[in-house]
Amino acid sequence: MTENEKMMQLALSEAKKAYKKDEVPVGAVLVKDGVVIAKAFNRREASKDATAHAELLCIKKACKKLGDFRLNDVDMFVTLEPCVMCLGAILNARIRTLYIGADSNKPDAIKCEELIERAELNHKCKVVRNILRSECSALISQYFLDKRKG
Amino acid sequence: MTENEKMMQLALSEAKKAYKKDEVPVGAVLVKDGVVIAKAFNRREASKDATAHAELLCIKKACKKLGDFRLNDVDMFVTLEPCVMCLGAILNARIRTLYIGADSNKPDAIKCEELIERAELNHKCKVVRNILRSECSALISQYFLDKRKG
Repeated sequence: MTENEKMMQLALSEAKKAYKKDEVPVGAVLVKDGVVIAKAFNRREASKDATAHAELLCIKKACKKLGDFRLNDVDMFVTLEPCVMCLGAILNARIRTLYIGADSNKPDAIKCEELIERAELNHKCKVVRNILRSECSALISQYFLDKRKG
Repeated sequence: MTENEKMMQLALSEAKKAYKKDEVPVGAVLVKDGVVIAKAFNRREASKDATAHAELLCIKKACKKLGDFRLNDVDMFVTLEPCVMCLGAILNARIRTLYIGADSNKPDAIKCEELIERAELNHKCKVVRNILRSECSALISQYFLDKRKG
């Protein structure tokens, strides 16, 4: 397993915590100099907060830990392609590289790469896809399959 | 003054609080059935949190107040066109109508209206621009003028 896969495995462990709590299973970790500085999972239902996605919670934790809104040289590993809100937060926090597990299940929606370009912010972040893609994708699919069953 | 202008005036009062604290002066209010349910101003510097924009803080307050991540039939008034993160939060929270004061100072960046379409979310929000535009625009311009002066 590569270093990137090990980090995505940690994000997947977070996603599984969300799954157990009947939340859409998405997990994220932030890494600086090879060290995990924050982990989080989606808590939208439990917290009754539209902003409580894994990526946003993770960024808030890391800002608090580092005492800075700029997360310079920090990389994010997230099990599912971020929504518009979370991608915006990733750019605002100046995350260096975004490692994605599974692609968005909205194939026609604007992609992270295009939105990063079109946001016209001073900061741009690099995107690397398909880290443990099949495991990340399977977890999300299983969740929605369970939901449809009842 | 119209009802919409009165609400934007409240958002401007919030923005002025940010200005006094040397934060980029943006303010937001959320309104349901003609009643203000949350107000907030940008606190990025003070809170050292990349996500502490006026709109996001306002949405978090309203979710807490209503005990729901869905802000159905809630409208937002914000003094400046939202960034990508905040527009995403507005969509995730299912805000009904977004009333904007000043346009973004990034004229080439993707516009709210296009991003709302391209996000491919089930929820879309209506956008109304130019509510007290000159007052909202003047406040932001003054802030950046002060900053350049040192």
